[in-house]
Amino acid sequence: MKRLMLLFVVIVPLSIGMTAQAQGHPSLALTKEGVEKIRAELGSVPLFDATVARVQAEVDAEIELGIDTPIPKDFSGGYTHERHKRNFLILPKAGALFQILDDEKYAVYVRDMLFQYEAMYKDLPLHPQTRSYARGKLFWQCLNDANWLLYASQGYDAIYEWLSPAERERLETNLFRPFADFLSVENPQFFNRIHNHSTWGTAAVGMIGLVMRDDGLIRRALYGLDDDGLDFEARDNDGGFIKQEGQAAGFLANLEDPFSPDGYYTEGPYYQRYAMYPFLVFGQSLDNVRPELGILEYKGGVLLKAIDALLNLSDADGEFFPLNDAQKGMSYYTGSMVTAVDIAYHAGDNDPRLLDIAERQGEVTLDDAGFAVALGIRDGKAQPYEKRSVNLSDGREGRQGGVAILRSEGLTLVLKYSAQGLSHGHYDKLSFSLYENGNEVLQDYGLVRFVNIEQKGGGNYLPENTTWAKQTIAHNTLTQNETSHYEGRYEIGSKHHSELYFYDASVPDVQVVSATDTNAYPGSVLRRTMALISDERFERPIVFDLLQVSAETRNQYDLPFWFMGQHLEASVDLETQQIPEPLGDKNGYQHLFLEARGKADGDNAQFQWMGQGTFYTLTSVVEADDELLFTRLGANDPDFNLRRDAAVILRRKAGKRSLFASVVESHGSYSPVSELTVNPRGNLTALRVLQDDERYTAVSLTDREGVRSVFILSNQDPASSTNHRVKIGDRRFGWQGPYHYGALD
Amino acid sequence: MKRLMLLFVVIVPLSIGMTAQAQGHPSLALTKEGVEKIRAELGSVPLFDATVARVQAEVDAEIELGIDTPIPKDFSGGYTHERHKRNFLILPKAGALFQILDDEKYAVYVRDMLFQYEAMYKDLPLHPQTRSYARGKLFWQCLNDANWLLYASQGYDAIYEWLSPAERERLETNLFRPFADFLSVENPQFFNRIHNHSTWGTAAVGMIGLVMRDDGLIRRALYGLDDDGLDFEARDNDGGFIKQEGQAAGFLANLEDPFSPDGYYTEGPYYQRYAMYPFLVFGQSLDNVRPELGILEYKGGVLLKAIDALLNLSDADGEFFPLNDAQKGMSYYTGSMVTAVDIAYHAGDNDPRLLDIAERQGEVTLDDAGFAVALGIRDGKAQPYEKRSVNLSDGREGRQGGVAILRSEGLTLVLKYSAQGLSHGHYDKLSFSLYENGNEVLQDYGLVRFVNIEQKGGGNYLPENTTWAKQTIAHNTLTQNETSHYEGRYEIGSKHHSELYFYDASVPDVQVVSATDTNAYPGSVLRRTMALISDERFERPIVFDLLQVSAETRNQYDLPFWFMGQHLEASVDLETQQIPEPLGDKNGYQHLFLEARGKADGDNAQFQWMGQGTFYTLTSVVEADDELLFTRLGANDPDFNLRRDAAVILRRKAGKRSLFASVVESHGSYSPVSELTVNPRGNLTALRVLQDDERYTAVSLTDREGVRSVFILSNQDPASSTNHRVKIGDRRFGWQGPYHYGALD
Repeated sequence: MKRLMLLFVVIVPLSIGMTAQAQGHPSLALTKEGVEKIRAELGSVPLFDATVARVQAEVDAEIELGIDTPIPKDFSGGYTHERHKRNFLILPKAGALFQILDDEKYAVYVRDMLFQYEAMYKDLPLHPQTRSYARGKLFWQCLNDANWLLYASQGYDAIYEWLSPAERERLETNLFRPFADFLSVENPQFFNRIHNHSTWGTAAVGMIGLVMRDDGLIRRALYGLDDDGLDFEARDNDGGFIKQEGQAAGFLANLEDPFSPDGYYTEGPYYQRYAMYPFLVFGQSLDNVRPELGILEYKGGVLLKAIDALLNLSDADGEFFPLNDAQKGMSYYTGSMVTAVDIAYHAGDNDPRLLDIAERQGEVTLDDAGFAVALGIRDGKAQPYEKRSVNLSDGREGRQGGVAILRSEGLTLVLKYSAQGLSHGHYDKLSFSLYENGNEVLQDYGLVRFVNIEQKGGGNYLPENTTWAKQTIAHNTLTQNETSHYEGRYEIGSKHHSELYFYDASVPDVQVVSATDTNAYPGSVLRRTMALISDERFERPIVFDLLQVSAETRNQYDLPFWFMGQHLEASVDLETQQIPEPLGDKNGYQHLFLEARGKADGDNAQFQWMGQGTFYTLTSVVEADDELLFTRLGANDPDFNLRRDAAVILRRKAGKRSLFASVVESHGSYSPVSELTVNPRGNLTALRVLQDDERYTAVSLTDREGVRSVFILSNQDPASSTNHRVKIGDRRFGWQGPYHYGALD
Repeated sequence: MKRLMLLFVVIVPLSIGMTAQAQGHPSLALTKEGVEKIRAELGSVPLFDATVARVQAEVDAEIELGIDTPIPKDFSGGYTHERHKRNFLILPKAGALFQILDDEKYAVYVRDMLFQYEAMYKDLPLHPQTRSYARGKLFWQCLNDANWLLYASQGYDAIYEWLSPAERERLETNLFRPFADFLSVENPQFFNRIHNHSTWGTAAVGMIGLVMRDDGLIRRALYGLDDDGLDFEARDNDGGFIKQEGQAAGFLANLEDPFSPDGYYTEGPYYQRYAMYPFLVFGQSLDNVRPELGILEYKGGVLLKAIDALLNLSDADGEFFPLNDAQKGMSYYTGSMVTAVDIAYHAGDNDPRLLDIAERQGEVTLDDAGFAVALGIRDGKAQPYEKRSVNLSDGREGRQGGVAILRSEGLTLVLKYSAQGLSHGHYDKLSFSLYENGNEVLQDYGLVRFVNIEQKGGGNYLPENTTWAKQTIAHNTLTQNETSHYEGRYEIGSKHHSELYFYDASVPDVQVVSATDTNAYPGSVLRRTMALISDERFERPIVFDLLQVSAETRNQYDLPFWFMGQHLEASVDLETQQIPEPLGDKNGYQHLFLEARGKADGDNAQFQWMGQGTFYTLTSVVEADDELLFTRLGANDPDFNLRRDAAVILRRKAGKRSLFASVVESHGSYSPVSELTVNPRGNLTALRVLQDDERYTAVSLTDREGVRSVFILSNQDPASSTNHRVKIGDRRFGWQGPYHYGALD
């Protein structure tokens, strides 16, 4: 892999310019050749035709409204921001319509708008809002200016040949070149990073470079600025470092670094889908204009792999798992994912499963890729996209932990044992979330931000994103001594990651992932083993969860389960707090009200709740003095930025070694329409730790009939080839591989 | 109307018996003649055929499982309860399949199950659970036993002719007659009431009477028991009186009393849809076996009118407005509404709009009515059911207030100014709720009960239903001095009702309802005038709300708005409570935490929130010292029975006369997929009281452009014919009718 990249670096500079000027315009994602094909078939490709009709209605309405390029003033959500945003979104659409429909009014519209920008740009000061580490001109941050240039380039490309040379000259001299310079040489702290901001920045500069056939700009985009003078201590608005020593820059470095070889993007799926648009549009365009670069084969074809990874990082409704900073509800129905899916199909090997997603999206891009997809659907080539269990490595070389997704029937379990995820990362080592049929069962909170909603801090990140959403207690994982992982410090977290112990989804009925963390708390080793087990004794697959801690000292542990739904019943006597007080004063605890607490008695604690039409039961092994804390989010929230979500927290004070064993059952159903209740109680009656030593941990599961099964974990050897023998009680067990699940008696 | 009823009472006893024995069986909702028609067309009526196939699969699965009639033991949600419930639900289905498919295995199944019940019934003691005021034998309450008999009668009717006379004799002697006697003469406190319980009881006894052609049972069902020995002070489990002095009983009295002439059922839509099944199945059956009774024409055809009323009492998704005790989510997709819609079509005048609802329901009843509906749909007769604004009177003679529903575009406003609603009523005079496109915007809490969910108090009403859900502060209406209407006492509330001032939905752009209450608080007169106004200055119709109070003393008033969604911004400075305390210690206030409070300043207070993809702004006129209280439900809730919903409460201390004027705007949109924000702020910038005296109240609405409109209310004359003239400031206004809305300047 490394050798390939070096080759690339050497060859590229030579090749640039060799094929330049050979092709005409348009030449980006929409090509001259593509336009010919589209025009020939127009009217006979339903999904493409429908998209053309919809886009035409949208663009015609904008033309009717007239062009407005107001003096920049507002944050996102405000008029000037939203107006400029609509402008750049409409430019490539109008350009594509001009090419496809051969109707000059669209070209006139693009030209007139570009000249309005040309007229204002050279005298435009920095945006008056000063919040950003990299202020833009049209928008409050360079990021949105880069959006503008990347989209506008496509509009320009579409009318390039229709414009006179003098018009092109004027636009390039007064608008596009200064714009590209502003985003790069004038803002190296924005351009020369490894960050989604820089992906947008470099792609934008590269796109306009491609249209202008400007090798200098293309080179700047691909390799970054040679001399940026950046300070290695500087941070951005999210607290992330601007640049680390020795770090490369440019589009290629941004492609190299944040993606693992499996296509997982280290910031998480929410930011990945955002970054996919510049990655893919510039990637596709580069592939068209500079095919000799082989950009789509770069790093083992990671650009296309990333799309498959991203599609797998969504629930049954196509909504992305809200890992790290992520606004819930974002899904593969978003515009950038239409582009991603279409390009993946067209530029990849025409995977017919992608046509299934495209059909659901109900639209295609108005370019070569979208046309290929619409053709494929018309010709009945679509095949179901069935999401599978997958283990995605994190880190440039795939060696910085990862994210495992186990799927069985309607249940999906996500275990995060990744690296920090740059500045958008959360302190949530070994946290998990659980979904059923597109509903959250045990949630990951996501972010505290109302993107583009002006009333909420201008639509930007809110203080509670730091004080709550990033903190460990906000996640379904272990908090030690009420302190977040890595003390909640980015400079520590960004140096570490968890490690896979093993992943085995080869047997559909017992899928297991196990990961270890040794850095979240110095001196403590955490290992979490989670399995999705289909056992005919249980109505649906159960979640088996084994969290082992070994520490140097006695600690307090909090293991929350952020359940979604109505509290039904707890097996312990609860003492309700008449006046609920915050559970702590820092690390997220200051945002939690304690609603009720109860001391564990017996060997297990059970908690039942009802989600959307489904019952759930959590059964946990408890020790004397363990407590259940029922908490409600919302303390110290002066601006009502937090949802009033609930968690049950298992609290334990323990010495050097402690084991948290739990099972989550999904069972039965309820409908408020039929008012029919089916199977409202789980089938698990007892969970017992039979053995827990250095070599093996064994836990039994007893059902209502008294039938017992056992899960045995090898604590020292994760190899799939190793043979194990162990005697538990009177019974001898022998098996191969790191775990065994089967009948106990 | 009264004369008609007397006529009925006189004629009926004579006619009973005259046509008896003339027809064969089946003869209830499914008739011998109907079966012939169905068999002739089977296979060519898609919706009917699909329903047959689905029911067949369901019944076959039960046959496969074998018959189980366990010894009764459990509350609802428990096994014996749910098993007996499934049994009675399956009996008429199996019977219908026998008739339609002419397959004896279904008759054998019905017979065998009935004989299992026959074998156990005579020795069966009262159900061991003692909670009910009227314990059943198969179930913990007679109500469910009545369900059993009503359904089982239909199964018996279907195989009546197939059984031998000796078998019929045995079933009737050992099972059906003792069962009917148990529900009536042995439980007069259940049978002889005006209550949905008695509707089920009398219909059940009547149904088996019809099958057995037993005039004595039919008469008992229609007119009740002559001598019941009931105590007028006795109460049921919900605190409702069992019987009032001089009150009639029987099915006819139950039809006469709770329905208004408009078809509104005084307990509210949730209980209405439950009662509709016995009303309609017995009604339809009576109409078949005893057509001379003219039951469907009774009280102006109220049985069929009630179905139209009920359909109008639902939101855009078909979910019923949760007035009084009502579990949210109940909708016209529930089984009893399939029956209701099919019978309304068949027995009524084949209203083609009902076919639209039936199509959405996706199933029909397996009887004459269902077949007629499926035929109508097959033949393309369906027409859209468009819900309209409607004012439904309450009370036997339509003189006890009512419920008004105003609809405009996607918005639906419901104002409740009805009578108490028997034992399921809430203390919520002049409360309103607001819906948009099937989403709750300003909610009515509904009930505190998890119907059929065993873990929550056996699925029965929970204590918080009384301490919270029924209380005034749980509703969007005025609470005086932290006390509920009628002191929260049923014996007072059941004597009173509010009065309509006027209702005018004749002009679609300004629809207004106004009602007055003089009893909720002795000495205080409340009048609420609400309008749904379409004004081109506002993106969508706005809700205009004028609540006038005149009192004899100085009082504290709380006017809550139970908003659904995310708190965005309040115009007053809020002081967040570090440790939230309950807002009070009784009348529902003990369940509210105060999260933040703020003193009003200026003339208006504004509060913005975001619902499901839509922005809302509440603007209220405020006076010096008015306060906004942001409260959260959930205090004193030891069993987690309450949702953590939020309200903003406008609190005012005022003397003899006070005016609450508010506007709710719906505007803009937000999507987490596109992250696009449209129009996040309302257009109303000022709300001013221009005049407020004994004769007129005038309020102006100013928008961002400074344009003003005015709403003027005549406080003394609601007549639509009266001409008014008034001078406001420099301007003279003249109009006809109780209100005026128009430009101010």
